[in-house]
Amino acid sequence: MAKKAGTKTRTTTRRSHRTPARERIVDLARSLVQLADQQRDLHLDIPVRALSNVKFNPKRQIIEMGSNTQRRSFFNLGQAKKFMQTILVAGSCKRLIDQTKTTSIRDLFYNCKHTIADSNENTFDDQEESDPIIEDLEVALDSLREELGLYADPKGAMVGPVTVVDTGDTIDLAHLGSGGWAVPSIVEESVIQFKTSKAKFVLLIEKAAVWRRFNEDRFWQEHKCIILHGGGQPPRGVRRLLYRMHQELKLPVYVLVDNDPWGYYIYSVVKQGSINLAYESRRMAVPAARFIGMSSFDAERYDVPTAVAIKLNDRDISRAKEIARYPWFAKRPWQKEIKHMLKRGLKLELEALSSKDFSFITETYLPSKLRRKDWLD
Amino acid sequence: MAKKAGTKTRTTTRRSHRTPARERIVDLARSLVQLADQQRDLHLDIPVRALSNVKFNPKRQIIEMGSNTQRRSFFNLGQAKKFMQTILVAGSCKRLIDQTKTTSIRDLFYNCKHTIADSNENTFDDQEESDPIIEDLEVALDSLREELGLYADPKGAMVGPVTVVDTGDTIDLAHLGSGGWAVPSIVEESVIQFKTSKAKFVLLIEKAAVWRRFNEDRFWQEHKCIILHGGGQPPRGVRRLLYRMHQELKLPVYVLVDNDPWGYYIYSVVKQGSINLAYESRRMAVPAARFIGMSSFDAERYDVPTAVAIKLNDRDISRAKEIARYPWFAKRPWQKEIKHMLKRGLKLELEALSSKDFSFITETYLPSKLRRKDWLD
Repeated sequence: MAKKAGTKTRTTTRRSHRTPARERIVDLARSLVQLADQQRDLHLDIPVRALSNVKFNPKRQIIEMGSNTQRRSFFNLGQAKKFMQTILVAGSCKRLIDQTKTTSIRDLFYNCKHTIADSNENTFDDQEESDPIIEDLEVALDSLREELGLYADPKGAMVGPVTVVDTGDTIDLAHLGSGGWAVPSIVEESVIQFKTSKAKFVLLIEKAAVWRRFNEDRFWQEHKCIILHGGGQPPRGVRRLLYRMHQELKLPVYVLVDNDPWGYYIYSVVKQGSINLAYESRRMAVPAARFIGMSSFDAERYDVPTAVAIKLNDRDISRAKEIARYPWFAKRPWQKEIKHMLKRGLKLELEALSSKDFSFITETYLPSKLRRKDWLD
Repeated sequence: MAKKAGTKTRTTTRRSHRTPARERIVDLARSLVQLADQQRDLHLDIPVRALSNVKFNPKRQIIEMGSNTQRRSFFNLGQAKKFMQTILVAGSCKRLIDQTKTTSIRDLFYNCKHTIADSNENTFDDQEESDPIIEDLEVALDSLREELGLYADPKGAMVGPVTVVDTGDTIDLAHLGSGGWAVPSIVEESVIQFKTSKAKFVLLIEKAAVWRRFNEDRFWQEHKCIILHGGGQPPRGVRRLLYRMHQELKLPVYVLVDNDPWGYYIYSVVKQGSINLAYESRRMAVPAARFIGMSSFDAERYDVPTAVAIKLNDRDISRAKEIARYPWFAKRPWQKEIKHMLKRGLKLELEALSSKDFSFITETYLPSKLRRKDWLD
């Protein structure tokens, strides 16, 4: 097993990737002090996080944020509270970095929440007030929340012929039994390093239960690949790790999802990012990710009985039509794929393949798709 | 790292704990064939899974099932479909055991779903039909679903000074970095074994985000304990593992939850089992589990500001009153605890302690509770 890492290493390791974020918080504070000294209006300029300020970059093939900003002033009655909240959250993040700690966004909310002296007013009443402030700070400071030290609930597990170093512990992901490695929420370079890898590709599977089938059948051993899942829409930790494996280990990425609009969307978020969090695309999107399945054409090709298909409902249909209009689904094969699903009027879950045999998906379906290079880009 | 386990070991390991379940399925089938040979009515007797057939055993301090059963007959028009479904699910479970595989309950549903020959009828239309049948079989065969080879989505992670063997892989849970070991859904003796342990107790934490604080602060290292979480209400895998660590490693179990009726309930399910799944208590409940916090008395004692408490809503209040009437909450200290929460009219999340300091919970609160033996039984 790994050699025990000393506390010193741990601290040093953690600190490094957060230094720029800390410097930017301090710069922000300095600029405010300067404005105050000059008796000018205290204000922050926050990039606009809305559809109006998002665009698809066809060259880089990712969704990006535009350059519009919005001013938040202290001496504006409608903005003063938000201004104060922004400064409180920034201060709390700086304390967190100084203590070389990380924490959840809920925890941060509590850390910032208090009753303002000589009043009945709370700084925050609800986490719904502090969460958007965190996103504001991410874009204003050009620092991902992972760099600020904030994490979400972890979701997702991973196994495969790869060894990682996690906070000083060396972990061989080929020997983690049935459970696998719980992918942490923060997987930045200074926390997680790749030590060795014999993997030839990465397979991202939508669902935990299907991932377990791939693990139990040792698919990753036979096909020399890394398998991971994100428990539905993959959390940021899983997306960031996928990005890093693609970039640093030079591994192709395949995405395996249910055949429904929600599956298409999971793929598209992995591939070019999301509209809501466009500012993350640059460090999380994998434009070369391939959609390996399930395709609406697979039902016929692999003779999946109609009894296990599910009728598209109205929500599915309108979502599919919406997705078909996104510029990043404009390519002909994708239009064909979506139209064919709509024409059949049916969706298919990955588990539907089990109507043929429990291991049909690992022994027949996926090997055949890979061999025939039957995927969409 | 662990020595690679051969496929043979893997198979042998898996098979053993499922042999009794397989035998019982075969016995069930034989008894039906016998009835048919004797030209008698084919039927199954299924223990009743309802409040009417559940009782609290004050001696063993767990919730148990009674002995009432319900007959399911093939030659009864209202029962024929359910009879057929029960046999289909049993057959699918036997195939699963014969193939030494495990699968999800959704997968099993698909495996059993097909259109009945010369008809438009499906064997199952919805997973809501197959899930209760699985529970019927568990009680009828006296085999947990883990023995049948069925798993739920895994939730939960664990670290600590303990080494486990998972499907042949030796895993040192003291060296798993920030992510920890993803607790699998099936943790029966023949899949997971405890190899070595230096732990003095187990701490079950309600929430993943709070668990991460304990892991980051290396609480388990300083206090020589195992920390695990179940992502809210712990899934069966986490409960079963807790039970086994208590029984096999002889470790005291402490439960740390939010101070609200839902936290109390999480504790009580760990301690004496649940009404819905009373038949599991025998192999999952830990009657000696201790409630270490948060108590409604902790707010005053640890000077937690009222600003971070949340007002109890109507649902909280009625749930608290309901819980106070359960026989397993009848003890005086518990009645005091619940009444005090109701009197304050406030609930507290574990994260609320972060209003004092990010690590108040790991450095001050819990060490003090343990030192003062301030828990409820």
